Amino acid sequence: MKRMVGFGDMMLRLGPPGYLRFGQGNCFMCYYTGAEANVCASLAIMGVETDFVTRLPDNAIAQCAIGELRRLNVGTRHIVFGGDRIGVFYVEKGASQRPSKVIYDRKHTAISTSSPEDFNWKAIFDGAGYFHFTGITPALSEGMPAVVEAACRAAKEAGVVISCDLNYRKNLWTTEQAGKTMGKLLELVDYLIANEEDADKVLGIHAPDSDVIAGKLSRDGYTQVARRLVERFPNIRGIGITLRQSISASDNIWGAMYFTEGTAYFSREYNVHIVDRVGGGDSFAAGLLYGIGTGMSPQDTVEYAAAASCLKHSIELDVNLSTVAEIRQLMAGDGSGRVQR
Amino acid sequence: MKRMVGFGDMMLRLGPPGYLRFGQGNCFMCYYTGAEANVCASLAIMGVETDFVTRLPDNAIAQCAIGELRRLNVGTRHIVFGGDRIGVFYVEKGASQRPSKVIYDRKHTAISTSSPEDFNWKAIFDGAGYFHFTGITPALSEGMPAVVEAACRAAKEAGVVISCDLNYRKNLWTTEQAGKTMGKLLELVDYLIANEEDADKVLGIHAPDSDVIAGKLSRDGYTQVARRLVERFPNIRGIGITLRQSISASDNIWGAMYFTEGTAYFSREYNVHIVDRVGGGDSFAAGLLYGIGTGMSPQDTVEYAAAASCLKHSIELDVNLSTVAEIRQLMAGDGSGRVQR
Amino acid sequence: MKRMVGFGDMMLRLGPPGYLRFGQGNCFMCYYTGAEANVCASLAIMGVETDFVTRLPDNAIAQCAIGELRRLNVGTRHIVFGGDRIGVFYVEKGASQRPSKVIYDRKHTAISTSSPEDFNWKAIFDGAGYFHFTGITPALSEGMPAVVEAACRAAKEAGVVISCDLNYRKNLWTTEQAGKTMGKLLELVDYLIANEEDADKVLGIHAPDSDVIAGKLSRDGYTQVARRLVERFPNIRGIGITLRQSISASDNIWGAMYFTEGTAYFSREYNVHIVDRVGGGDSFAAGLLYGIGTGMSPQDTVEYAAAASCLKHSIELDVNLSTVAEIRQLMAGDGSGRVQR
Amino acid sequence: MKRMVGFGDMMLRLGPPGYLRFGQGNCFMCYYTGAEANVCASLAIMGVETDFVTRLPDNAIAQCAIGELRRLNVGTRHIVFGGDRIGVFYVEKGASQRPSKVIYDRKHTAISTSSPEDFNWKAIFDGAGYFHFTGITPALSEGMPAVVEAACRAAKEAGVVISCDLNYRKNLWTTEQAGKTMGKLLELVDYLIANEEDADKVLGIHAPDSDVIAGKLSRDGYTQVARRLVERFPNIRGIGITLRQSISASDNIWGAMYFTEGTAYFSREYNVHIVDRVGGGDSFAAGLLYGIGTGMSPQDTVEYAAAASCLKHSIELDVNLSTVAEIRQLMAGDGSGRVQR
Amino acid sequence: MKRMVGFGDMMLRLGPPGYLRFGQGNCFMCYYTGAEANVCASLAIMGVETDFVTRLPDNAIAQCAIGELRRLNVGTRHIVFGGDRIGVFYVEKGASQRPSKVIYDRKHTAISTSSPEDFNWKAIFDGAGYFHFTGITPALSEGMPAVVEAACRAAKEAGVVISCDLNYRKNLWTTEQAGKTMGKLLELVDYLIANEEDADKVLGIHAPDSDVIAGKLSRDGYTQVARRLVERFPNIRGIGITLRQSISASDNIWGAMYFTEGTAYFSREYNVHIVDRVGGGDSFAAGLLYGIGTGMSPQDTVEYAAAASCLKHSIELDVNLSTVAEIRQLMAGDGSGRVQR
Amino acid sequence: MKRMVGFGDMMLRLGPPGYLRFGQGNCFMCYYTGAEANVCASLAIMGVETDFVTRLPDNAIAQCAIGELRRLNVGTRHIVFGGDRIGVFYVEKGASQRPSKVIYDRKHTAISTSSPEDFNWKAIFDGAGYFHFTGITPALSEGMPAVVEAACRAAKEAGVVISCDLNYRKNLWTTEQAGKTMGKLLELVDYLIANEEDADKVLGIHAPDSDVIAGKLSRDGYTQVARRLVERFPNIRGIGITLRQSISASDNIWGAMYFTEGTAYFSREYNVHIVDRVGGGDSFAAGLLYGIGTGMSPQDTVEYAAAASCLKHSIELDVNLSTVAEIRQLMAGDGSGRVQR
Repeated sequence: MKRMVGFGDMMLRLGPPGYLRFGQGNCFMCYYTGAEANVCASLAIMGVETDFVTRLPDNAIAQCAIGELRRLNVGTRHIVFGGDRIGVFYVEKGASQRPSKVIYDRKHTAISTSSPEDFNWKAIFDGAGYFHFTGITPALSEGMPAVVEAACRAAKEAGVVISCDLNYRKNLWTTEQAGKTMGKLLELVDYLIANEEDADKVLGIHAPDSDVIAGKLSRDGYTQVARRLVERFPNIRGIGITLRQSISASDNIWGAMYFTEGTAYFSREYNVHIVDRVGGGDSFAAGLLYGIGTGMSPQDTVEYAAAASCLKHSIELDVNLSTVAEIRQLMAGDGSGRVQR
Repeated sequence: MKRMVGFGDMMLRLGPPGYLRFGQGNCFMCYYTGAEANVCASLAIMGVETDFVTRLPDNAIAQCAIGELRRLNVGTRHIVFGGDRIGVFYVEKGASQRPSKVIYDRKHTAISTSSPEDFNWKAIFDGAGYFHFTGITPALSEGMPAVVEAACRAAKEAGVVISCDLNYRKNLWTTEQAGKTMGKLLELVDYLIANEEDADKVLGIHAPDSDVIAGKLSRDGYTQVARRLVERFPNIRGIGITLRQSISASDNIWGAMYFTEGTAYFSREYNVHIVDRVGGGDSFAAGLLYGIGTGMSPQDTVEYAAAASCLKHSIELDVNLSTVAEIRQLMAGDGSGRVQR
Repeated sequence: MKRMVGFGDMMLRLGPPGYLRFGQGNCFMCYYTGAEANVCASLAIMGVETDFVTRLPDNAIAQCAIGELRRLNVGTRHIVFGGDRIGVFYVEKGASQRPSKVIYDRKHTAISTSSPEDFNWKAIFDGAGYFHFTGITPALSEGMPAVVEAACRAAKEAGVVISCDLNYRKNLWTTEQAGKTMGKLLELVDYLIANEEDADKVLGIHAPDSDVIAGKLSRDGYTQVARRLVERFPNIRGIGITLRQSISASDNIWGAMYFTEGTAYFSREYNVHIVDRVGGGDSFAAGLLYGIGTGMSPQDTVEYAAAASCLKHSIELDVNLSTVAEIRQLMAGDGSGRVQR
Repeated sequence: MKRMVGFGDMMLRLGPPGYLRFGQGNCFMCYYTGAEANVCASLAIMGVETDFVTRLPDNAIAQCAIGELRRLNVGTRHIVFGGDRIGVFYVEKGASQRPSKVIYDRKHTAISTSSPEDFNWKAIFDGAGYFHFTGITPALSEGMPAVVEAACRAAKEAGVVISCDLNYRKNLWTTEQAGKTMGKLLELVDYLIANEEDADKVLGIHAPDSDVIAGKLSRDGYTQVARRLVERFPNIRGIGITLRQSISASDNIWGAMYFTEGTAYFSREYNVHIVDRVGGGDSFAAGLLYGIGTGMSPQDTVEYAAAASCLKHSIELDVNLSTVAEIRQLMAGDGSGRVQR
Repeated sequence: MKRMVGFGDMMLRLGPPGYLRFGQGNCFMCYYTGAEANVCASLAIMGVETDFVTRLPDNAIAQCAIGELRRLNVGTRHIVFGGDRIGVFYVEKGASQRPSKVIYDRKHTAISTSSPEDFNWKAIFDGAGYFHFTGITPALSEGMPAVVEAACRAAKEAGVVISCDLNYRKNLWTTEQAGKTMGKLLELVDYLIANEEDADKVLGIHAPDSDVIAGKLSRDGYTQVARRLVERFPNIRGIGITLRQSISASDNIWGAMYFTEGTAYFSREYNVHIVDRVGGGDSFAAGLLYGIGTGMSPQDTVEYAAAASCLKHSIELDVNLSTVAEIRQLMAGDGSGRVQR
Repeated sequence: MKRMVGFGDMMLRLGPPGYLRFGQGNCFMCYYTGAEANVCASLAIMGVETDFVTRLPDNAIAQCAIGELRRLNVGTRHIVFGGDRIGVFYVEKGASQRPSKVIYDRKHTAISTSSPEDFNWKAIFDGAGYFHFTGITPALSEGMPAVVEAACRAAKEAGVVISCDLNYRKNLWTTEQAGKTMGKLLELVDYLIANEEDADKVLGIHAPDSDVIAGKLSRDGYTQVARRLVERFPNIRGIGITLRQSISASDNIWGAMYFTEGTAYFSREYNVHIVDRVGGGDSFAAGLLYGIGTGMSPQDTVEYAAAASCLKHSIELDVNLSTVAEIRQLMAGDGSGRVQR
């Protein structure tokens, strides 16, 4: 699979250890993360060459973030410096009926104050095969849609395949803003990834017979969602949708659909006992792109992506640290969790 | 809701982190807690003005306990100083078939050696609306029943509503002692709280067709228990009973009954994956009193109290750190644990 | 029950805390352990006098291992010193569909380079009643089968009952090597312990109608396995087999069979929510030997052993820290995990 | 001593434990702090009634900060809510020749976007005796000088004594901006606190014969600095200056001067082995104000303030947790550190 | 050296990690300790057979204490069970000018409610060579002097050498009570250990020209103290006195005197950078007894004891984990702290 | 400065946190390190392109080591896989008079069983400017001298400058073995680095008037050592020697000499309060090579190298995380440790 370029925000994730609430204890676990960076990292662990592009302040905390990317084997040479701050978000892990809580402090960050000319996309895309961004990046500030669009146009020009995860964040923009901006960007996109709510929130396309809060998901409904997405954006060659049924903060049922060339492929479903679900969607995107990039069949692609993201739920923090071998073993049906010696 | 006064013991809770047993590792998590203090803290988080009354030794460890109460917004101005020691208890968290273990070291504490004149109840109850104590406080020493009775009589005089959680502790007194002392105190009580075993142990009133160890609980049985309690103590205006079915140390089914004006109201049941169940009863008491104090309907009261204490089971340590908004969300049916961003 | 002697390896177990993967964080929990040492420790906690025999390098890390044995009340006076290193193994705890991972670094250890004359078996077995070893010990190096055989012959001479846990480790030797060596040693063994795979791997005796990966276990099948084992080794007086159905790395169904005098006895089954499953087999062996050594009936023996090892799964690290009273309480049917105050 | 009001920023302090650098390990110790909040907290521990005024976002992290203030017995009822974020700063503790490092991320915070009308100063100063602010608060944004000036004018009107710690921060504003703004505010100030560099940086008044980097401080020089300050601001009744000689990040010599009514009083000097020097200046300000507010002699005032801040250097994190008794013991000459049983 | 028997209290030591104060953070390091137990443990590490005798409650926390003794190779077979509680003490480590703080909660413990007949001294002393107790043990309750005296008389009868560390604790008894009780017990003692204050506090014998708080110690003065002690108690064959000059809580000068047969021997002095000074006196007692028990010359004895206790100050928690080889290396003059590979 | 290649071992460093001894607590801090890897990492942080070459087993622990190298920006593309194990070493940090203790378990590692043809030196040195190895690498096994010699010859052929740190390890080989092997390898070396003992131990060249244990070092003596080294190995263009005076495990005096073209240059001396001294020599080597590689004057070179390694002593674990700017600041004389905001 050719080199993948990700573009987006990089933040410091902070949160109390285990199941403590924010006010309990005197330390926060810390980690450096971002939706697109997570996709790059997951692909890097699968053996794909990647480059993550962002803008970071020139300080020691940003250097920690870059060091972490390097550790995960993600390319960092195209990261540019400037601006005042790295974003921060706070995660309190939920359990049982208590939901996880995320508080974002990501305004005024280095990337959100960037402009199109900060990035040399021609050099960045030289020799690249894939470009990935999410709906978070254009939502970061008023100037960011233009920055993302410039990246997409440069990618198109370079013959690079573009993937986008809708990733709607209600505290960054309204559904109207999201719909308008993403509607325009999606005309440039080849592969679309979404979760069970995104299409509804961003594009007003919802799955009949499904009720996300009640955990009721309809296979037919999501097939129709995909069909309508392709009708509106005929440029889209494939759509991956994660299907999460939340039993509680501790237990979910997890599966996925991949729609391509008019047909919907569904993965097996997993009863997931959750260690950390942050980054679940990103790990699915990485799995889907790996399947597409390595030429798997549509059914194998969705199975691989579902297995990858199933494993992510058993891993602390945001990045899916699973290898191809580990994912394939689960994909092959061994979810028994027997000790590997 | 008017100011609530709690009276009782405050202890240092110690225990190994996670699921380690007492002898594993070289640190104990520490926390300052007590049954009535937990009720005050939970109500304070719900926005109710509270005062916790106790007697503590004049040392730096007791100051830590007071600091923790202040942090939780519980009033501490009526705490008096004297005596030798703060109590200690050791908690080893169970899992699966292994039960949690609690070792108490609460004899000879500052409060257990207090006398009625240590507390200026007239000043304490000035402007207060509620007084809460549990069956633990009179059990702390031979002198304590008189101290508690003095508090109750002062509360009655001040027109303060009295609530009591039976909270039988077999290592503090015998069922006979408990029955005699509590039987007398209950004649002063307006609202009674108990768990599925207390009424049986303290007052000899047991629920037919129920077997607590086997996890079999009968709705009719507990309605009869409540009826008989009201027959014996006609002064009691409402009875809340928690109904716990222990599948294992990791999983419980949790619900509650509220009996008032001749009718029993049952909450929905929750499948709880336990983070820490210590303080579950206290959080129920706080929820029930909040429902009563803010004028909820009986059904809403029991649903609120059950949802509050359901959430407590997902929170580390003894205090229910849930806000009214969080409890109302679960009460409204969203127990899916989906991430709150 | 008379003194039990265990002989085998002692290693340093290292692994990240909680559910972190190897590369996450900057500390490893550390513990000193070994299959036979775990059996000795579990029996010592049950009140049985034990001695653990091994060879360790003369350094401060080995002294930590010995200190840990002493803490657990295991006799250490027959440990001999020499060689270069103590073995190390790395454990990454799995969860949900992600399996636990164990990496061994146990070659060239002090014990693996020992020779029969390093141990004064005559003195060691003086007054002892039981000798326990596992299939790991002869697998440690080419010279070890002779060392183990010498120990067994000395035990036989001293009238000591010999027990052996097959414990096949595929990264130590091939099934052929194991079959040849163990086939010879088993002729000296009185009690045999195995898990659902060992007999198949080591001796080529498999349970019909069972599929371990799919979690399908057949009672009849395992009875046949036992029967065939006794046919081949008529000296074997009893066979204990653990029966694990792996739902996931977080949840297992656990039970056991004890076959003696032509009859198979099955324990009740437990739905286990796993804290740490390493050492599960060792805790079963200890339970079984305790039942045999204290003269329990075969049914009680298997129930005791199954309850003991069920509890082990709820305990961190390798040793079953459960007391006889705790095991008997579960054996008697109380697996409700209600708080013990 | 009458109630003290502090006004300023409240931030989340983050940093690796011990002497680790930012990129080492995966957790940050966390604490909630601010220059004026530290002064309030230190006075509260000394038994003075205090109120800390700030503006915080309405989220769970800000609630943690407020809880911490409450724990320290600082009044929080005048804190107002609004704005987007709480500031963050990162501290890496130095040792030996390696300096401590602080990275601020305090722009766009709730307080920096506040306006004069956000605070009801009339109510806040009702019954108060003292008002304290530092040079950090007006530096937080372009609008903040007006907010601080409004507070000072309201304090003056209410007859409240005003104290100010110059606290120059070069990454918040230039010396020119600081000089202009602080020059105006100091006309309203009764007591001024500064460290060995502030007067030079902010007001261009430097101590002859002193070289801060080389650790050379001149008593006469600092007396002249004080004299010139009083010449320029005749409203100032007292000036406290801390005198730090940095031997290394681990060892400092610490003392102070108090200048009042034309005379300079010098404290004894302490050889300080540093645990955490952040908040050293704040603890000096609190000590000085306590001396002034409780009517100590000028010599006692400076000795008390120096002893208080000497002890702070032996305490982790920003707040001086020393009691009056502890400070008086050191002030009385017992710095031997003998165990207090 | 023949077997040493220690008799005294065993407590749980609790305290925040590093230099945190009691109210900071949410965990306490925990350890099981006692003055005489520390002496036994130190001797056990030096290779001496020891037995520690105490009375403990029959619970899991006491079992942890016993396990820790076993880990340190201290004999525990003569520990008896009964009573309600194990004592607790809280330690906050000081630094620089801030003293360490110890809060005791050791009343009503199992040992303090023991009676002479709880211990079978005849069996305990069978084959023993040494008996050690401290001035803490008779101070634990009104009944304890009789218990200690019974032990001493039994020791004398068995021909066992008795050593006593004066160890005055002002929160356990007054100097008058101590003087009266210890004066009587010392008539049975062969070797006496004291620190620079004990003889003054307990027996009213003080060193001229010495001022402990100011850190001024006079060699002649302490020689006179020893002389007067021997005059009063001619049965005493040797007296060891530790000589601590407290520069600060971080730095001490440490040395010792051993007085025997009319001559005072002084050790070299050590500039100690303190890690944990709790247990320093106990480690000196152990070192002195080792020197005496193994027949060292008086000068070697005091050098060994001083070197042993010097090393203890560099070790966390109460027990001197130094081996004979490590102590001899320092005694031989190598205090350079160069890495041992 | 041109690319630097390092070749040597990579190990897992384990040790208890803070000043705990090996047997205290239940976790070990873990880190991946090696003498040459540390030099590469330090240079990478200074902005030099580096490649570390080693042989590692193909397992997850080795992957952690590689990830750590990547995080530090060290090139890892020439690492080869094979063999059984990664080495382990255990570090117990000393304090005051207690020395640090290191236990090695580095036999039979992947690299020690490598052969010359495992490494493609031609490709490795393509475009490189420097090659660094230490005396540890040829000492790892009997086969390693040939492997190192092959590397050196290939370096020579490629016109790469060779540096060597003598780094004598007495538990790997005898002084005779070391002298013979190193004597041969040094004929290929351009720059030699040694500490105050190495030349004596390996080559029998000692500094008159110096006594390392007593901390007495003679400038003239070390100049003579350098002169004699150059006489014996005229190919050597420069010699760096670190000069450590060990006051205690907590405090050292640290300086260095650089000898080139017949002249000895001495750095200033630093009074170092030690955080972690492991890796001190490696950080000196990196500093020296940086000075040489960037064309500093000999005096600046030795000052830079001494300042770099002085800072290392204040940093936890093995790698000098100091930047060029930080080192230059200390080199310029600012060792006051004042906070950098």
